Amino acid sequence: MNDLLSRMTPEEKARQLDMYSSAREIVSAHTDETHAALDAAFVPEKAEAIWGSLGVGAVHDLNPTAEQANAIQKWVITHNRLGIPALFIEEGLHGYDTGTVFPAPIGLAGTWDPQVARETGAAIAAEARSHGVDMILAPVLDLARDPRWGRVEEDFGEDTYLTGQFGLAYVQGMQGDSLASDHTAVAEPKHFVGHGSPDGGENTSPVHMGERELRTQMLAAFEPAFREGHAMATMVAYHEIDGIPMTADPLVLKQILRGEWDFSGFALSDLGAIRRLYEDHRVASSPQAATCLAIRSGVDMQFYDFDHAVFEKALVDCIKAGTLPPADLDRAVRGVLRVKFMLGLFDHPFVDTTLTSRTERTSAHLTVSLRSARESMTLLKNDGNLLPLTKTTKHIAVIGPNGKIARYGDYERETNGKHISMFEGIQAEVPDATVTFDEGKDISAAVAMARQADVVILGMGEWQGVEGEGFDRTNLDLPGNQEPLLEAIVATGKPIVLVLENGRPLTIHWAAQHVPAILECWYPGELGGQAIAETLFGDNNPAGHLTATFPKSTGQLPVYYNSDPSRVHKYVDDDGKPLFPFGWGLSYTTFRYDRMTATQPTLKNGQNINVTLEVTNTGSRDGDDVVQLYLRRDFSSVETPERELKGFTRVHLKAGETRTISFEVPQQQLQIWNTENKWVVEPGSYTLWAGGSSEAALKTTLQLK
Amino acid sequence: MNDLLSRMTPEEKARQLDMYSSAREIVSAHTDETHAALDAAFVPEKAEAIWGSLGVGAVHDLNPTAEQANAIQKWVITHNRLGIPALFIEEGLHGYDTGTVFPAPIGLAGTWDPQVARETGAAIAAEARSHGVDMILAPVLDLARDPRWGRVEEDFGEDTYLTGQFGLAYVQGMQGDSLASDHTAVAEPKHFVGHGSPDGGENTSPVHMGERELRTQMLAAFEPAFREGHAMATMVAYHEIDGIPMTADPLVLKQILRGEWDFSGFALSDLGAIRRLYEDHRVASSPQAATCLAIRSGVDMQFYDFDHAVFEKALVDCIKAGTLPPADLDRAVRGVLRVKFMLGLFDHPFVDTTLTSRTERTSAHLTVSLRSARESMTLLKNDGNLLPLTKTTKHIAVIGPNGKIARYGDYERETNGKHISMFEGIQAEVPDATVTFDEGKDISAAVAMARQADVVILGMGEWQGVEGEGFDRTNLDLPGNQEPLLEAIVATGKPIVLVLENGRPLTIHWAAQHVPAILECWYPGELGGQAIAETLFGDNNPAGHLTATFPKSTGQLPVYYNSDPSRVHKYVDDDGKPLFPFGWGLSYTTFRYDRMTATQPTLKNGQNINVTLEVTNTGSRDGDDVVQLYLRRDFSSVETPERELKGFTRVHLKAGETRTISFEVPQQQLQIWNTENKWVVEPGSYTLWAGGSSEAALKTTLQLK
Repeated sequence: MNDLLSRMTPEEKARQLDMYSSAREIVSAHTDETHAALDAAFVPEKAEAIWGSLGVGAVHDLNPTAEQANAIQKWVITHNRLGIPALFIEEGLHGYDTGTVFPAPIGLAGTWDPQVARETGAAIAAEARSHGVDMILAPVLDLARDPRWGRVEEDFGEDTYLTGQFGLAYVQGMQGDSLASDHTAVAEPKHFVGHGSPDGGENTSPVHMGERELRTQMLAAFEPAFREGHAMATMVAYHEIDGIPMTADPLVLKQILRGEWDFSGFALSDLGAIRRLYEDHRVASSPQAATCLAIRSGVDMQFYDFDHAVFEKALVDCIKAGTLPPADLDRAVRGVLRVKFMLGLFDHPFVDTTLTSRTERTSAHLTVSLRSARESMTLLKNDGNLLPLTKTTKHIAVIGPNGKIARYGDYERETNGKHISMFEGIQAEVPDATVTFDEGKDISAAVAMARQADVVILGMGEWQGVEGEGFDRTNLDLPGNQEPLLEAIVATGKPIVLVLENGRPLTIHWAAQHVPAILECWYPGELGGQAIAETLFGDNNPAGHLTATFPKSTGQLPVYYNSDPSRVHKYVDDDGKPLFPFGWGLSYTTFRYDRMTATQPTLKNGQNINVTLEVTNTGSRDGDDVVQLYLRRDFSSVETPERELKGFTRVHLKAGETRTISFEVPQQQLQIWNTENKWVVEPGSYTLWAGGSSEAALKTTLQLK
Repeated sequence: MNDLLSRMTPEEKARQLDMYSSAREIVSAHTDETHAALDAAFVPEKAEAIWGSLGVGAVHDLNPTAEQANAIQKWVITHNRLGIPALFIEEGLHGYDTGTVFPAPIGLAGTWDPQVARETGAAIAAEARSHGVDMILAPVLDLARDPRWGRVEEDFGEDTYLTGQFGLAYVQGMQGDSLASDHTAVAEPKHFVGHGSPDGGENTSPVHMGERELRTQMLAAFEPAFREGHAMATMVAYHEIDGIPMTADPLVLKQILRGEWDFSGFALSDLGAIRRLYEDHRVASSPQAATCLAIRSGVDMQFYDFDHAVFEKALVDCIKAGTLPPADLDRAVRGVLRVKFMLGLFDHPFVDTTLTSRTERTSAHLTVSLRSARESMTLLKNDGNLLPLTKTTKHIAVIGPNGKIARYGDYERETNGKHISMFEGIQAEVPDATVTFDEGKDISAAVAMARQADVVILGMGEWQGVEGEGFDRTNLDLPGNQEPLLEAIVATGKPIVLVLENGRPLTIHWAAQHVPAILECWYPGELGGQAIAETLFGDNNPAGHLTATFPKSTGQLPVYYNSDPSRVHKYVDDDGKPLFPFGWGLSYTTFRYDRMTATQPTLKNGQNINVTLEVTNTGSRDGDDVVQLYLRRDFSSVETPERELKGFTRVHLKAGETRTISFEVPQQQLQIWNTENKWVVEPGSYTLWAGGSSEAALKTTLQLK
């Protein structure tokens, strides 16, 4: 690679740091800009005009067929003197394009089962790579600490440790043992870093935090994906922290990511994030200055920030002018080339065109999607054991805007058309029942239908236009007419189950007081309707647990569980408690926790923490439980959270079964970033809690000498 | 002083760092704990038992008569071998105890007239000092950036520059030319530092920000009070920033306050803030450790944190153990002694007992209070020029919970009983009119009264129990039944004026849409009712302007005007704009701004910015206007606010008059805290706007070479 680098001109180097839109630039006219593969063809003449002969860093936006990818790749390789292949980058957060649609990440994390995240990542990678796509713009490891933010659904929730574990599993699944395969792809954890806490919950707004919070909460969520998972790319976020935009922040991009974590891949600008240095942050007074500042700070590739000519000329000019050290340009190019080498693109640039049909939407992949959906079902409330419903129920009314449309959430274009709605799922689950549907636009018609039914399933939540990237909300009640619809249906006195498909915690305070059963399904993927129906009728015993706190009102925000202990909770008009806490989730059975002990109540420096407890299924049904371990430093030289998740395990227990659960927490998990800006583990006492939510009461203590 | 210090034992030194509660400890039984002076007497035997012979740092909580103060002081001086006098510290944010009640700071700042803040500070000091009180626990220079926080009313608003100027004026007024007088007192800017942005708006909760924001926004609001105003004390805040509690933060207490700003007074713990290190922040594992950590970090005096014996022994023990450097103990003692020397307490420890009657509630002080109230009246809306009302109005209905009770706000104990409510003010203003009142508890009765009237004055807002310290709210609508009351009165179709007495911006979105005229009065002091009536009937032309942004909903928070330009304002369900912006305020006349120019459009390094513009009173009434100057760095090496207030002036213009207004902005106001953590003024272009609110459109630019 160094040999190759040494033979490249600055112009050729700049080309490797640029991303080209296939859909817009080098294919024939087509009807769907983000889906050119459907009806477009690669047009070499266009490539000739736009790409010329200096090489192509990456192509994007085509979602190609294998044939298209091969044609483009062949052209690229044969049209630059060094034969450097292009990198194909596409979206695929919870499913690649025409492939399997998996539950959205907020639901995936709700399984508390990293193995299903690993399998999801692997399946997405295999389906994408079969199209010649080398890299997926995922996972999202932002911490979902403000539900007003429309991107909560893309996250694994609000917690550092949980996000870290899911990010690691997803990356490991996606990248596999080797990127030089026909079924793995480069993972790109994003948005680096701290993106989940924007001012006012508004996407890309400034983030307010100091380096300690950034390191111990935000960066720590990314660290496993890079250090253990060896993710080979990252996306640099739009926001600034304390006046420093992420695309101009060498502390995170150079010192931490590369220096402390040995990251050797490349850092991609979020779409326009470098341009923002000039247009929004105004820390660079020209496109050229923005470009060179970003590369100098540790960004490696632009993402439609500036016109190709402007971007590439800026790099060449800045090298000449001495405002961009050649070492920075080379670092950036080396990262891109290294990824291409690791993918084997120099030796095997083309994809087997028979692979897609053997890979996409296989029953194995669909099984992963269904399992993820089943495991993500989160029972928030079940008064009087209304759920599960009996399969002999005669008349079921499904009412609400999400009753008959399977919601996928953002970054899923719903192009495969295979989804199963909750209405369809229920029909299939209880084929002998009468299942009626009303969207609920006309409330009186919905009420009339409800009155006819034995039970009402309210299919409510969110949809594109009120959620997703760029859809931030000031009001977190059920949108549209759903709150009055809910009240009207409740007034009928019928048994009601509120089934939610939505992308963020909602302020369903009224529903939580008046509806007996609430099932949170998030966006459960293409087989979600089946999983919902199985859950409603008891074939799936729900064991999903919340990974983001539900607030009672927007006036409570922020309400994530692991705030520092000096956070006060005593509003004059509210007790400050959340509606549903982090980790919350019910089952059709019940669990008891006891006999919690630390194997070594007095630890020496370097020893890991070993904790055991007994969990008993005290009900009459088999079921999964998610046992969670929380830790507190009783005293430390800097303030640390009231409690922090440090372990979790999802276990299946038969009715009546008792199991001993063991946790081993690496002593490193005790570390703090101290007042001298060093990582240290401090001697002292620690408290550990275990149980079924962040409000777990069972505890033990240990001492570190 | 060094001589004195050298003669003190560690035990005697520790005593100087302790505050004693007179009311609880050394007076006879009394009925009002916070008002012992009313019916208690100094009991030397109690002092003997509690104070002994090692001296007394400060006494507090008595609100003494001059005679009581003298008796206590005499005892203290004669009962320690070095004859060190005690310091008398009391509350007095907007009025000392039985003295004149001035408008609350949020209203005082709404005058945009620092001279009235200076006179307020001077009057409070004179009234307090006449009682033998040496130091007032004020002003509050926290930035009011979250209206959920109950202490917004104590602040001068959300802006750094405005708060800085009001803090300076108040301190200069309070401390006068010399503290060694009978009419000045030590000012104590607080809460040091960043206290106004607690998580969730909950008092004392963690604050999230980096050092740049802390320095350029929060610390900069305090800097004039210390560097130019030479405030001789400060109060150290309860909260932590990024894991470091303020009482354990040598960066702000030592490096910045003392090192960079040459502060030589003393830093007092907020009540219990040192104890919080142990109980809440948990960065110290014992009271002793907390005490020594605080003193080591730059706190100088405890405020009821620990029992006297615990606190004082901790210091002596830590000195012996080597965990508290003797230099830190001496620094703390030196600060306290220096203040006592500056106050002249060693030479003139006693107060003239005839002074109170000649000082308290003089007509001069009452005039300051009334002028402040008049100038603070802020007209938010006046559709169809409903205001001013004609004095020939026959029947006026005053309705609402604040109609007949003058609200003073927090830190005012309303003990002088002299207040004028808006009802009383209106009666006096239009003696021939029929003025009726209904509290509005029974809405139908209020509606019936409204129907009888020619105009309805809705006296609404807040009161003790929903506002003030510790009264943080998740819901910022008008509390209690006021929203339905408002809607019912509006439904009568009568002309309605909403007159607000409240302590924070409220989400009066409905009122702003449906009520033609809204007058924000904050808590206007004991003559507030008079000022309100004069304003309603046109004898006072309102010119108060908001110093804190009014949000449309809590879901928008934070919404302060000077966020960084990368803050997005495009919620899917809201335009992100505030209800009323910072700087907003109407008049009974109108103003036009034009001919704005920078005298030197190209500045050299070191040159100040000189800007002029013309302001014309384009209406038919004389009136004041508040002309505001805002600045933006067009590009800078770190992101800086979209616009920042850098100058303001309140001017009186006769109807039709045009005046040229000049602003001189010190070039230092352009400085930024750059990426290398240095203060620099950067060359480049700057944009300046001038006008009547933070949305001013008239602008000019200049270049700094």
